[in-house]
Amino acid sequence: MKFEVTILGSSSATPIFNRNPTSQLLNVNEKFFLIDCGEGTQQQMLRYGIKAQRIDDIFISHLHGDHYLGLIGLLSSLHLNGRTKEMNLYGPEALQDILKVNFDHSQTQLRYPIIFHAVAPEKSCKIFENYDVIVETIPLEHRIPCTGFKFTGKKRLPKVIIEKVQEYEIPLEQITRIKKGFAFVDKNGNVHPATEFTIEPEKPKVYAYCSDTVCNWKYIDLIEEIDLLYHESTFMHDMLERAIETYHTTAWQAGEIASKANVKRLLVGHFSARYRDLEPLLLEAQSIFPNTSLALEGCTFQV
Amino acid sequence: MKFEVTILGSSSATPIFNRNPTSQLLNVNEKFFLIDCGEGTQQQMLRYGIKAQRIDDIFISHLHGDHYLGLIGLLSSLHLNGRTKEMNLYGPEALQDILKVNFDHSQTQLRYPIIFHAVAPEKSCKIFENYDVIVETIPLEHRIPCTGFKFTGKKRLPKVIIEKVQEYEIPLEQITRIKKGFAFVDKNGNVHPATEFTIEPEKPKVYAYCSDTVCNWKYIDLIEEIDLLYHESTFMHDMLERAIETYHTTAWQAGEIASKANVKRLLVGHFSARYRDLEPLLLEAQSIFPNTSLALEGCTFQV
Repeated sequence: MKFEVTILGSSSATPIFNRNPTSQLLNVNEKFFLIDCGEGTQQQMLRYGIKAQRIDDIFISHLHGDHYLGLIGLLSSLHLNGRTKEMNLYGPEALQDILKVNFDHSQTQLRYPIIFHAVAPEKSCKIFENYDVIVETIPLEHRIPCTGFKFTGKKRLPKVIIEKVQEYEIPLEQITRIKKGFAFVDKNGNVHPATEFTIEPEKPKVYAYCSDTVCNWKYIDLIEEIDLLYHESTFMHDMLERAIETYHTTAWQAGEIASKANVKRLLVGHFSARYRDLEPLLLEAQSIFPNTSLALEGCTFQV
Repeated sequence: MKFEVTILGSSSATPIFNRNPTSQLLNVNEKFFLIDCGEGTQQQMLRYGIKAQRIDDIFISHLHGDHYLGLIGLLSSLHLNGRTKEMNLYGPEALQDILKVNFDHSQTQLRYPIIFHAVAPEKSCKIFENYDVIVETIPLEHRIPCTGFKFTGKKRLPKVIIEKVQEYEIPLEQITRIKKGFAFVDKNGNVHPATEFTIEPEKPKVYAYCSDTVCNWKYIDLIEEIDLLYHESTFMHDMLERAIETYHTTAWQAGEIASKANVKRLLVGHFSARYRDLEPLLLEAQSIFPNTSLALEGCTFQV
């Protein structure tokens, strides 16, 4: 099953030419989730050959412009390009006011329904579930209410071993039972445990998106031992004071969080425009948590 | 005196990778005016080395997203980058609601004042004047209220001919009088008309920005014989029906308007995303009005 994230924007609020404000596209088994939608996200999707019409769910972490100012344009373009299927939108309740005032004044009547799911920022809760994945919120601590999102893949049924199925001439209707763990009785009356015929499926993967937040340890339990953690890393640690003042995290702290949570891999992003060269941020995070990468525009990371 | 326009965006509402939604920067004697501000305008300014902090006046033609969705981000960035001097904003009254709801929910208190000038779309009126230029609105006819903007350079005083000033030993205090047209009496009592000492200044230049509008002839008198006309030209003329339906103009019609108004030069822009190659639009407009250019991103045109 495909489970990968493509970075569409890596910069924080003030723009810098070769970086875009925050947005990510998550592909979970060919279902596309957009996470945040900074200004220019539409153009980024065009740049990387992503078909915006395939997105059915958009998650907005908070109402700072660098995380949502591309949303109205994207929703309008989908409308102009003939979308009729509904769009699910998850975000702070006030996002509805912003949509309303923009669409009212432009006299835009979207041709497709927007199903709005207001996200409460106080405590973690499940906001989405399908056959492949569960999405839960991660309460973060920012200047305004902000939530991260955790995407947990679902455990699959085990795969059957074809050769064994043929050897014991197992009828089709028994296979589903075996996958569910029921023992199999062969024609000689011998009982075989299901595990004899199956291979355990891969452990479900987990991706978490944490932006923007001051470094705090309250959400550590929600990201423990996950496969891939995206964490904001706006400043170098020599700007810790500024990071605290603006409710952001340093690269060093992002490494520390990844290390404490014992995640498998860390992506850092949301870089301040003051850093033209991002290498020092990477090295700083890696000094604490070696398996760290920069969440650069256009890069795709397997969860 | 510098009087030139730089194109920051040339596309209409749905995005296309190598074009940006509408925005233009006008430089009138080193005073910078921003006209419309589609999504991504900040990035375009970075791309073309334009210092956004030098802009003191922003003109928004109407409230369709491709003309203003970059504004909140731009105003926020100016704030984050330490602006303290006021910004004048000219546009539809409802733009204030949009600013308010965005800034309220992001809890943004701009460090600099925004002086909002509500523009009434019904009839032409003067909305700005300084030593160099007068700005008037051009009522257009679009799906929602929309105004163009006309920038008329001011007539300068004539220049004095240095050699003549020296020959007649004209005292400094007399020079301003001569520039204003008063005759000069030399030390022998001979009366010289002012024109003997002066060169007529260049005729003031005029730039008009007309986007978006269905082709109508009501604003022809406002753009008569101007130096440079920017006119939207969303479609080729084979899509006239669609142009009328969406209150837009075809390239052929833009040429016709330029021709009827007897302007010196025409720029066409606001191209539909359906046209990857813009040459046919250019040729169509040129077939009616030869002195036409495409308003392409990054190009600067002298008024």
